[in-house]
Amino acid sequence: MTLSEFLIPSKSYASLRGPEDTIVLSSRARLARNLRHASFPSYAKKAERLRVFKQIRDAVLKLNGMDSCFVEGMGNLSSDEKTALVERHLISREHAARGAGSGLVINKDENISVMINEEDHLRMQAILPGFQIRQAWERIDQVDTELEQSIEYAFHPKYGYLTACPTNVGTGIRVSAMIHLPALALTDQIRQIIGAVNKLGLAVRGIYGEGTDALGNLFQASNQKTLGETEDAIVTRLEKVIRQVVINEANARQTLLEEKGQMTLLNHVGRAWGTLSNCYMIETQETLNLLSFIRLGVDLGMFPNSDREIVNELFLVTQKGHLQMMKGTMEDQKRDQVRAEILREKTALLGAPRKVKVVSKGGKK
Amino acid sequence: MTLSEFLIPSKSYASLRGPEDTIVLSSRARLARNLRHASFPSYAKKAERLRVFKQIRDAVLKLNGMDSCFVEGMGNLSSDEKTALVERHLISREHAARGAGSGLVINKDENISVMINEEDHLRMQAILPGFQIRQAWERIDQVDTELEQSIEYAFHPKYGYLTACPTNVGTGIRVSAMIHLPALALTDQIRQIIGAVNKLGLAVRGIYGEGTDALGNLFQASNQKTLGETEDAIVTRLEKVIRQVVINEANARQTLLEEKGQMTLLNHVGRAWGTLSNCYMIETQETLNLLSFIRLGVDLGMFPNSDREIVNELFLVTQKGHLQMMKGTMEDQKRDQVRAEILREKTALLGAPRKVKVVSKGGKK
Repeated sequence: MTLSEFLIPSKSYASLRGPEDTIVLSSRARLARNLRHASFPSYAKKAERLRVFKQIRDAVLKLNGMDSCFVEGMGNLSSDEKTALVERHLISREHAARGAGSGLVINKDENISVMINEEDHLRMQAILPGFQIRQAWERIDQVDTELEQSIEYAFHPKYGYLTACPTNVGTGIRVSAMIHLPALALTDQIRQIIGAVNKLGLAVRGIYGEGTDALGNLFQASNQKTLGETEDAIVTRLEKVIRQVVINEANARQTLLEEKGQMTLLNHVGRAWGTLSNCYMIETQETLNLLSFIRLGVDLGMFPNSDREIVNELFLVTQKGHLQMMKGTMEDQKRDQVRAEILREKTALLGAPRKVKVVSKGGKK
Repeated sequence: MTLSEFLIPSKSYASLRGPEDTIVLSSRARLARNLRHASFPSYAKKAERLRVFKQIRDAVLKLNGMDSCFVEGMGNLSSDEKTALVERHLISREHAARGAGSGLVINKDENISVMINEEDHLRMQAILPGFQIRQAWERIDQVDTELEQSIEYAFHPKYGYLTACPTNVGTGIRVSAMIHLPALALTDQIRQIIGAVNKLGLAVRGIYGEGTDALGNLFQASNQKTLGETEDAIVTRLEKVIRQVVINEANARQTLLEEKGQMTLLNHVGRAWGTLSNCYMIETQETLNLLSFIRLGVDLGMFPNSDREIVNELFLVTQKGHLQMMKGTMEDQKRDQVRAEILREKTALLGAPRKVKVVSKGGKK
């Protein structure tokens, strides 16, 4: 089975819903683990990496609910397939660059994915739509507990789980939420909010993790520390902060609806829609930035056909990996044209945005 | 009669046609003259300026075809009216800043305008639609000849007509053409062409003359020298150079139609149309730059309703002076909204641009 046959089709994937998902697009929890009797992947010889790959793969496939998984070595995936996996946040960019001895396992609902021989022997992740940080953590904790029956982890009584990079030592946990904050950006509050979140001990990054820019007003907030706190405390703090950011973004959206006849809002959403529905060449970065305003407009009911699935699908299928998995590998210029063609056709379905009737804060249920 | 009642309505003004007017929007010829027995305006006391104003005004009004003129002292015009006059190229920006003792006379067809006590006592101009440089020169030469019957000019047998600034001494002539060069800009040839035109002794400036930027791919080409050449030689050279630029721009347009399935062209025209027909706030500069591509699209027949008058009218009525003459003086932000409203409504009438059938060079008549 090829990867594109295995992956949930973009259209169906785009229809997944979760709590507060107009602002929190997805929640993730991942654990870093290593085998006791093996060198870290970067120090291991190929034969050892292959042995580790086989051992972990077999253990993962025996877990409950891991039937019909997609299992593959990284060396057997095409460049487009790896890129598509990164776009769905199923593997890291770093893992995409690895070859023989590295691999992945994804369950059929795409909510559990395991990277083998990334920076650590084992990076396992649960990803759920909407604001479900605790649920994601519980899901991956369950996988971890089951795995521990058959795998002996590298564990130190004082430092906890040992990892290749000291920033992951201890719990080995990273919980994160992907949040969409266009109204905070439009009302010039985004820097302040990010600053506040940082001060609370959380990292805020672009959509593809460390070192990537914030595109399309999408941010990934996650815990910084893995040592000296319980998993529960880490999850609780992230939940609390994200809940506050959700309130801030919701208030900013309300402000945009109420202030000066929605002109700033209409102007951004209108221009984004006018450009996307009439462009003939467009790059990824501009696409994400404009789709951000379209999503905001859809969330606020500004389109005659405020169809959320269309926008979610466009966020996926206009990205390089997905586009090329569907239409074949092509040169940059050709890809910009094909992307524009998809965007013109799909955004036209929404109809031109117009002013919406404002429900004042007091009047909301 | 107020200025706005006098001026040809923007809609009718926008329908004026001339030769080659898809590329050469208008042609102008102006002469700088001074009275023999009076100080230059900047050195004259108010009483002298008022005397000069009266003398020149009366002489101008007696000329053939100058009945039903608009005559006014600059001090009696509102800021919006002066700005609108600059936007129609009937007065200079410098003249708009002048007060008592300075004034203007405009004939009812708006093709002859006389500034009194600008930098010189007399700046008279003929402006005609399209490529009609020689006709503009002949028209203003006729006015000059008639005026010389009743006014004694400051004239030196060796240096010719004397002027306040030495750059105008001699013939006192400046002939210019307003040219629209979007295809040369899109094909990255514009710098090279402007460089070549400069080398031929012509100046190329933005649409409002000296010291202004090129907005909307509009350029004003004019002679630099006024001394040591006959008027005929000056006019002939400008005509020759403009004719060559017209050929270059026409070739670039053909190239854009033929190359890579018109993608670059469609992309620019489509985005411009999408933005203008969906924006809710827009400034003048962006408006001119986007309307430039709309005009190009109209010239090439890319719109279902390729109506040239709509675009010409939009170039006028979206500018500050015209907008405020119509709708009243307003704050910047409000004006940006009113401008956007007009643009949305009018550009929608054109319909979305689409690919046009290419007529190859060989097949053209």
